[in-house]
Amino acid sequence: MEDFSGYPIHEPQFSTSASFSVDTENLQRQIDELSRFSDTPAPSVTRILYSEKDVLARRFIKNIMASSGLSVREDAVGNIFGRWDGHEPELTAVATGSHIDAIPFSGKYDGVVGVLGAIEAINVLRRSGFKPKRSLEVIMFTSEEPTRFGISCLGSRLLAGSDALANALKGTVDGQSISFFDAARSAGYAKGLEDLTSVFLQKGSYSAFIELHIEQGPLLEDEGISIGVVTAIAAPASIKVDFEGNGGHAGAVLMPYRNDAGLAAAELALTVEKHVLESGSIDTVGTVGILELHPGAINSIPSKSHLEIDTRDIDEKRRNNVIEKIHQSAITIAKNRNVTLSEFKIVNQDPPALSDASIVEAMEAASKELNLSHKLMISRAYHDSLFMARISPMGMIFIPCYKGYSHKPEEFSSTGDIANGVKVLAVTLAKLSPA
Amino acid sequence: MEDFSGYPIHEPQFSTSASFSVDTENLQRQIDELSRFSDTPAPSVTRILYSEKDVLARRFIKNIMASSGLSVREDAVGNIFGRWDGHEPELTAVATGSHIDAIPFSGKYDGVVGVLGAIEAINVLRRSGFKPKRSLEVIMFTSEEPTRFGISCLGSRLLAGSDALANALKGTVDGQSISFFDAARSAGYAKGLEDLTSVFLQKGSYSAFIELHIEQGPLLEDEGISIGVVTAIAAPASIKVDFEGNGGHAGAVLMPYRNDAGLAAAELALTVEKHVLESGSIDTVGTVGILELHPGAINSIPSKSHLEIDTRDIDEKRRNNVIEKIHQSAITIAKNRNVTLSEFKIVNQDPPALSDASIVEAMEAASKELNLSHKLMISRAYHDSLFMARISPMGMIFIPCYKGYSHKPEEFSSTGDIANGVKVLAVTLAKLSPA
Repeated sequence: MEDFSGYPIHEPQFSTSASFSVDTENLQRQIDELSRFSDTPAPSVTRILYSEKDVLARRFIKNIMASSGLSVREDAVGNIFGRWDGHEPELTAVATGSHIDAIPFSGKYDGVVGVLGAIEAINVLRRSGFKPKRSLEVIMFTSEEPTRFGISCLGSRLLAGSDALANALKGTVDGQSISFFDAARSAGYAKGLEDLTSVFLQKGSYSAFIELHIEQGPLLEDEGISIGVVTAIAAPASIKVDFEGNGGHAGAVLMPYRNDAGLAAAELALTVEKHVLESGSIDTVGTVGILELHPGAINSIPSKSHLEIDTRDIDEKRRNNVIEKIHQSAITIAKNRNVTLSEFKIVNQDPPALSDASIVEAMEAASKELNLSHKLMISRAYHDSLFMARISPMGMIFIPCYKGYSHKPEEFSSTGDIANGVKVLAVTLAKLSPA
Repeated sequence: MEDFSGYPIHEPQFSTSASFSVDTENLQRQIDELSRFSDTPAPSVTRILYSEKDVLARRFIKNIMASSGLSVREDAVGNIFGRWDGHEPELTAVATGSHIDAIPFSGKYDGVVGVLGAIEAINVLRRSGFKPKRSLEVIMFTSEEPTRFGISCLGSRLLAGSDALANALKGTVDGQSISFFDAARSAGYAKGLEDLTSVFLQKGSYSAFIELHIEQGPLLEDEGISIGVVTAIAAPASIKVDFEGNGGHAGAVLMPYRNDAGLAAAELALTVEKHVLESGSIDTVGTVGILELHPGAINSIPSKSHLEIDTRDIDEKRRNNVIEKIHQSAITIAKNRNVTLSEFKIVNQDPPALSDASIVEAMEAASKELNLSHKLMISRAYHDSLFMARISPMGMIFIPCYKGYSHKPEEFSSTGDIANGVKVLAVTLAKLSPA
């Protein structure tokens, strides 16, 4: 980097993308290598929180951070931070990152692109001669996926200061009755601790947080667009519903005498779809991913049914209105079918998050400078960014992925698309922490 | 029995029920003792075909038959026959019977009342001094329940001459991959055989077949009626349906781009109910007892769904019309929801059976003579009688059971109700094989 030349500087000196070169070969090799820390055979990836493979993968990430000149620290639950000190290190840092845990039999890009890609973005900036004013920090979040303890975005929720979660984890066990703390300790974390408030970050700890991620939807690929600039993250609400009827023999109980808990569930599933469509917004979605009947025999009228409903929106009020309609429908269906609505439990109801306008502007400007087609879009899936938004201005960069596939071995983003994402991230970081 | 007195006899001499006495205490003790041959603790009963407990229970039945003076024989699959020779033994016999196998965690009356009660009916006749013209035969059918090999009414289907079943059993294995023949041999049957045609009975082998059974429905108890005279047995058809869509992330795939296999299943389940109700007959029933979603995760749009549908009627044409409507709806739903109807398989489609008019008449007359309230009714559940009807005039006698419960430990019929059923059976047998 040159010193001040005497001429006024209106644009940062790295404004031309010409000086930015992503080492795509190395980045792809790292993605491939990381995918081998898996409990299931390639091409699938299974990497569960605090497992042996997760610990090895964490070491792999820390080594790459260190090789890239970042100073590495970890908190009590294993969120990993790699910092490149800016030349005004007293300023709040600009952060970027994602996760590397992977649900069973999933793919190698979800999350990973936003961790290895973030480190590469730092490398890109370094190689270009850029020196940031604010420190830049790469974060690898612990357990974005809920696989082991049923809690998604565990690390980022704690960073955002969730007392409720910090308390709940004291009593949390996995499917094998291993406590969260025993699991964390086996991976080298939470040593001697039962208090996780040390993980909490103050609001304003970062001046910006940006996450690079595969879209996990088909829009960018379908439209042939390179970059998605995320303006909002839709937040899910999860609902568990149970109906109970009397059951009985499929031959012996005549139709007028039935109170079929299975048909109540079927009706509610269709009602979820109806209320979602009635919202009138393309951004409202609702899904019944779980529908179980008891006793589940062909010649038995279902005496119990269980549904789990996921509904999301970028507008919290609109989403909550859908939830209320679903609740009213569940009550009405139970009444009409003479079954008991034995449970209607809203398991979580996270608020959506909006990207920060200045970060959106920076991401758009970066795309333009790099001559990459881009569009403003919504993140329908949620991410650690949803929780980072509670303590920092937030933005997300999406890149296309094959057919929108995610959470399966077929998940794929091309080296070129990943490189584009890394470049946009690098330029955005530079804009948010100018030299 | 007196010789001909010189006066014209219009009624059989045992026409007054006064001489008929059921040994209710002994019968109840036998029912209780038999219930102890179970693989699960009382009050539940679990007695699976050819298991150790089944073999012991069979020995128990054969001993009681022999004690009652019946000559006992067994066929190659373990249908057990106890015969009381009539004084014109060259005439075709009158038969009665049921089964003693019990699905897991069920009760002690289903089937059992029609086996032990049939032997007691013979005892009643014997004690009254009655001597039948036609031989009377008690049959204990093998495997009315489908638990072990997935085939219901295995013994009676074979008796009725099912070549298809005799062939299929050559390749049939249970859940532990034990072949039907190995299981049968371990219980002392099918010795050295692979040919089950020896089990087949010619049409006309019996002049009548009557089965005494608990109602397995609530009508008799609700209406305070002692005896159900069954005029027809509704027969089930079983259908398996699979839908396939593309699945996807519950957040990422917007509603217009979905083809949700779960909602297709929900819609079909409600359509089954609709078509059944449209039949306009109280006798048409339809049930979706199994509805499964894949992958079955709250944040995954179901990519596959599986339904199993049971529909029954006493009118075969009407039932088959319902099946055809369900099929058309499945096609339409698949088309509208852009999912694939990857399977629509009619697993079985047994024809219903009508009771023989002369047997119905005899059962009604018996009830009247015994001053027992009775009503004509349909058997909504199916029984070995459905298959015996293929080779013999058939009738069934129902007795009340507590709340219509069956296939659970709470299954119960009172000693008095059982005794009433035994008396009606005894009088009916006597009428069909007069002295």
